[in-house]
Amino acid sequence: MELPNEMTQMAAEVHESIMNYLEYGKYAKLRQAMKHYPEGGGKRMRPILAMMVAEAIGRNSKKAVPFGCCLEIIHNFTLVHDDVMDKDPVRRGRPAVHVLFDEPTAIIAGDALFARAYDILSESEVDGEALRALVHTVSETVYLIAEGQQMDIDFEGRQTVGVEEYLEMVEKKTAVLFACAAEGGAIIGGGSERQIKDMKECARLFGIGFQIWDDVLGILGDSKKTGKPVGSDIRNGKRTLIIVHAMENLKRPSKDRDILLAALGKEDATDEEVKAAIEALRRTGSIDFVSSKAKEYTAEAKRLLQCLPECKEKQMISQLIDYSVNRDR
Amino acid sequence: MELPNEMTQMAAEVHESIMNYLEYGKYAKLRQAMKHYPEGGGKRMRPILAMMVAEAIGRNSKKAVPFGCCLEIIHNFTLVHDDVMDKDPVRRGRPAVHVLFDEPTAIIAGDALFARAYDILSESEVDGEALRALVHTVSETVYLIAEGQQMDIDFEGRQTVGVEEYLEMVEKKTAVLFACAAEGGAIIGGGSERQIKDMKECARLFGIGFQIWDDVLGILGDSKKTGKPVGSDIRNGKRTLIIVHAMENLKRPSKDRDILLAALGKEDATDEEVKAAIEALRRTGSIDFVSSKAKEYTAEAKRLLQCLPECKEKQMISQLIDYSVNRDR
Repeated sequence: MELPNEMTQMAAEVHESIMNYLEYGKYAKLRQAMKHYPEGGGKRMRPILAMMVAEAIGRNSKKAVPFGCCLEIIHNFTLVHDDVMDKDPVRRGRPAVHVLFDEPTAIIAGDALFARAYDILSESEVDGEALRALVHTVSETVYLIAEGQQMDIDFEGRQTVGVEEYLEMVEKKTAVLFACAAEGGAIIGGGSERQIKDMKECARLFGIGFQIWDDVLGILGDSKKTGKPVGSDIRNGKRTLIIVHAMENLKRPSKDRDILLAALGKEDATDEEVKAAIEALRRTGSIDFVSSKAKEYTAEAKRLLQCLPECKEKQMISQLIDYSVNRDR
Repeated sequence: MELPNEMTQMAAEVHESIMNYLEYGKYAKLRQAMKHYPEGGGKRMRPILAMMVAEAIGRNSKKAVPFGCCLEIIHNFTLVHDDVMDKDPVRRGRPAVHVLFDEPTAIIAGDALFARAYDILSESEVDGEALRALVHTVSETVYLIAEGQQMDIDFEGRQTVGVEEYLEMVEKKTAVLFACAAEGGAIIGGGSERQIKDMKECARLFGIGFQIWDDVLGILGDSKKTGKPVGSDIRNGKRTLIIVHAMENLKRPSKDRDILLAALGKEDATDEEVKAAIEALRRTGSIDFVSSKAKEYTAEAKRLLQCLPECKEKQMISQLIDYSVNRDR
């Protein structure tokens, strides 16, 4: 499943705005470090969501462009810092900022992107009180993202993680920025309190669904489309919701637990071992659990769309939500 | 020379507000990491400056409290990240955040402080358009601070640094946040365009003077007061304006150059060698250059104070400026 053409077009426009906004500052090296991830592309889902909500409610998607770019730049700033913390050398097939430059430059570039994002936000053509609401929701959101990243880092050092706390981490690391996008779009569109609240919740659920679908793709995804080998999350020992669910539900001792542990985090596991581990996850119900959980979240998200008037953008958001749990990459 | 009692009182009030603002968020570890530097104290010069300017112009220093706390929290966020980059283990006599916790936590705590600062700013009791101006100046300022930090990091890897570029770095790393404090205070006080512009420039000059006076203290300061051994900047090989000036002006080869290089960056230099190096700096005119430069900046800053009406706060800002280049710690 692919995104509708109109969204691809919007993504291209947003990309151009972002790159223009980042032609700023007199220090070429810092500017280059800041532009490195944004110029690498991305789906631009957050700005697109904000713009479509503003259009659906107030017919003014253009007014949401600075806000959308602000969120996308914030998203990129968190990626730059996350990659430093995780010592991740590659992002979207290109060297990470801290590899292309160095760690201090990556930390500074992240900070500078964050500052630039707020400066762009301040240029929004909305009245001062709407701007106040936007500054508040963006700030609260970035705080929650920081909590989510802290949870993620702290999970690394732990033996076990529960399904509930894993979902909280996913919500904070990913879904809150989707929620902020839709909330801000509704504010910019001049929506009612109810519309602002419902669209925020709609996008929160959508964001969780979107993110945990990644976990399904990491195990079942077609390597040609995801760009990762089949079952790569298993060999890497990545802690995904599927694994968290399985570890919580597999009896100790049990044959399926042994089969899973024989491949989990073993870079040299054979294809047969990985395949057997996937079958064990299937028998435990972990794959079903996560894919149906993803679909539950998105179904509820779609239900909340009823706060919007009937229009093309409402249909497109609905398609975007469907896409999030049907995409194969 | 000490700060006036009233400022010490204001600093205590600001401290309390900051600590209240940072009682936020549900993740105790992150909260603790965020509070670590702010609870360690500091002169709170930026919030005090903002409050005094708002009081002098609009008799409304209380309205400047959230803005002042925002700046102080931003100042602390930059310290947390700078210490990670510089691998500096100690800050104000206490372990750095990345030592007390770890580097990822310090990076996240810095980001979270930054986000929290804007959320506090959004609570300012000023009209929406004044808030827009504040968000813009704060964001532009943090961008410049990032450029300054990038310059500082990049200077480390270079053989020589010139006086002009060193001053640009100092301006960006320190003075712009002072400028932002005074500009924001004038905006909150409802000042004229002229007052806003002049107070910003006044504080920029004051900030440069304040910062380069540190370089004088690092060489000539009384160890009992600065808390550092006499001439510690020389043994540490710290690149200060005095050293930058000397390296630019000492002929190569020359006896004084040899005397300076015999102690510079040599942790085991004898007291005699350090004393001789200081004498060489004195003969080169580098100490005079920097102390008179600091006094030039602050004299011009004081002249710009004439944009303020006669009042107690104007006198106090004047005292604060005098203090910055007469303090002994």
